[in-house]
Amino acid sequence: MIQVNFNPRVELDKIEKIIEEIKSDSMGGWADLPLKFDTTELQNIKDTAEKIRKESEVLVCVGIGGSYLGHRAIIEALRPHGMEILYVGNSLSKRELDHTLRKIGNRDFSVNVISKSGTTLEPAMAFEAVKQKLAERYGVVGAIKRIYATTDAKKGTLHAEAVRDNYTRFKIPNNIGGRYSVLSPVGLLPMAVAGININELLRGAAEMAENVDETFLISDIAGELELDSDEKTKQKSKISPAIKYAVMRHLLSKKGYDTEVFATFEPATAYFNEWIKQLFGESEGKNRQGIFPASVVYSTDLHSLGQFMQDGRRNLWETIINYPTDELNAKVVEAVQTAHIAGRIPVLKIDLESYDERGFGSLIYFFEMACAISAKLQGVNPFDQPGVEAYKEELRKLMEEK
Amino acid sequence: MIQVNFNPRVELDKIEKIIEEIKSDSMGGWADLPLKFDTTELQNIKDTAEKIRKESEVLVCVGIGGSYLGHRAIIEALRPHGMEILYVGNSLSKRELDHTLRKIGNRDFSVNVISKSGTTLEPAMAFEAVKQKLAERYGVVGAIKRIYATTDAKKGTLHAEAVRDNYTRFKIPNNIGGRYSVLSPVGLLPMAVAGININELLRGAAEMAENVDETFLISDIAGELELDSDEKTKQKSKISPAIKYAVMRHLLSKKGYDTEVFATFEPATAYFNEWIKQLFGESEGKNRQGIFPASVVYSTDLHSLGQFMQDGRRNLWETIINYPTDELNAKVVEAVQTAHIAGRIPVLKIDLESYDERGFGSLIYFFEMACAISAKLQGVNPFDQPGVEAYKEELRKLMEEK
Repeated sequence: MIQVNFNPRVELDKIEKIIEEIKSDSMGGWADLPLKFDTTELQNIKDTAEKIRKESEVLVCVGIGGSYLGHRAIIEALRPHGMEILYVGNSLSKRELDHTLRKIGNRDFSVNVISKSGTTLEPAMAFEAVKQKLAERYGVVGAIKRIYATTDAKKGTLHAEAVRDNYTRFKIPNNIGGRYSVLSPVGLLPMAVAGININELLRGAAEMAENVDETFLISDIAGELELDSDEKTKQKSKISPAIKYAVMRHLLSKKGYDTEVFATFEPATAYFNEWIKQLFGESEGKNRQGIFPASVVYSTDLHSLGQFMQDGRRNLWETIINYPTDELNAKVVEAVQTAHIAGRIPVLKIDLESYDERGFGSLIYFFEMACAISAKLQGVNPFDQPGVEAYKEELRKLMEEK
Repeated sequence: MIQVNFNPRVELDKIEKIIEEIKSDSMGGWADLPLKFDTTELQNIKDTAEKIRKESEVLVCVGIGGSYLGHRAIIEALRPHGMEILYVGNSLSKRELDHTLRKIGNRDFSVNVISKSGTTLEPAMAFEAVKQKLAERYGVVGAIKRIYATTDAKKGTLHAEAVRDNYTRFKIPNNIGGRYSVLSPVGLLPMAVAGININELLRGAAEMAENVDETFLISDIAGELELDSDEKTKQKSKISPAIKYAVMRHLLSKKGYDTEVFATFEPATAYFNEWIKQLFGESEGKNRQGIFPASVVYSTDLHSLGQFMQDGRRNLWETIINYPTDELNAKVVEAVQTAHIAGRIPVLKIDLESYDERGFGSLIYFFEMACAISAKLQGVNPFDQPGVEAYKEELRKLMEEK
């Protein structure tokens, strides 16, 4: 075992300041959102979801990146018994768009277009195709009644169109960025339509935000890092799971581990790993640094990337998201953990208490806060994405040439 | 631009020897498979597929790792209009198994169990559950007639059971390992059932194996490595795409790039990236080395990991699999490539000629051969997986304790 100095007092002083900075950041609106969600707005979301479920059999969600990954992840993980949701506007592949729209078939459908500006190319183009399909089916007036726009409250192309054509509107708070927006109307409306209990989701997130108790446990890093036991005790009483995890991954990163593999043993949560990858990749991958986020879904990946995890290059660590599961699957978690630690892979384990809305709500908030803290520890802004703009710029140039 | 010395003659001598070693390896049976596929067996596979499509509406495939990733990847990419395939036995999550089996509903179904030994825990347990479901629906005798076993020709638990109960049997050649088995009966039967033209698939693979012409082009590495133009010319006339790609990734790896990001702009090919990850991860990730394989699906990931690609840590390179697509999507490929090269990411691009069975056949063989050569260049055995055994051993211990 290699000892790593981790002085909780020093680190905690730093982190208290960091959390203050996060909450007062102009893009830190997500941090208090679950604690003070406007009850009128929440009721409005639920009423609208009910209306959509009455008028349609399918909801087509138009959005890219943070505008769809979070709600899709929760819907895929919990498989609620509400309405089917189809996702378009997250690529420019016409092959993909046509395929998805064909799935609607003869069923009645409504549309939730989610975009802060309305100018991002992928959703803008998909929205045009979907509007055309709506108009063919329901006429221009009928179409308008089936469009729900989640967008900026005051400005932007989509906002202007929504006002002009009188779409039902939901606000994306201007102090919340895409990848932190799943617990805003961005995610809540489609989730409610799909049959997710959004009250419980917000409750789980609020509990994690208040940090009343440790909803789940972060196991100490095994294999490479080991905190001495006095400090372990101190941590248990004082440090929230998100802080503990953020500090641990920061220490691993400083020791030269540059790749974090998020492991799940529940195939239905594969998309939740995609959401995590977006959150960390976009928040931390800048200034030529960042921990590369990867995802494995066990046990199938034990028969693929498992070989690499066991015996390959030792520049990575594993973060197991340990969902409550049946006894046998739990045995696999234990076996993998033991084998990987023996193979000198540092393993962090996040034990989730319940596989339901409340559990996932807490997990969302946990990762959002941990990510923001981690990025700050690393010295980068968790809330911007200058690199995404570079490709958009290239694309605009090419489109103009054409 | 940084110049890298690459002497094709020296490297080619080495590689000729490597290819001989691969083809004569006791696990190198895949290398000549598409060139000499037994026509009687091929016809038998197609006839059986036809029979399954007559008797059922759904085929349940039981398999893990190499026993399902390859055919699932092709079926998801090409979306043929044959029968629906469901996949079980690739995790121990009871939640997942129950969910998948519920999808059968009242439809008639058959089962293709794919396992060389029959003792791997995940498929063995799922197969028990599926057999029970079959017996409930069709009785014990009726059940047996709907089971198709793809397994070892002579030995193993599944082989013994298949002989005893008289299941229809297909052979997994004993000189082909799981992750190189997609063009054997392992992949061909379910693909034929799903409506894939397996003749065209084998044809594409055979063309790549014979290397008659360059079905697709590997662009030179941009950004970091640049071959001088004389050598470029020589390569073009002499080196097959698989060799070229293998050498380039080996050079990148020697320069310290330790993560390869496989990028696709067609969401339907996301699973094909999973197959690639398995192939490379399991073949190369050993002896504490290996290039970490990761996958991104654009353009959605441009709004997530795209930030990392553009501005994050520079220990990774990008391999774009450029499927033929519409004009707009092609513009995105160009924009991303330009932006990433400007961000100092080495970019390799594989241009595929046709988005169909023939194209994917060539791509499968290309990656298999490139992977085997790469592993050999790196000095590891491309065909074993000692690390996978480590977790199986841990699991067996835990099961025995219980």
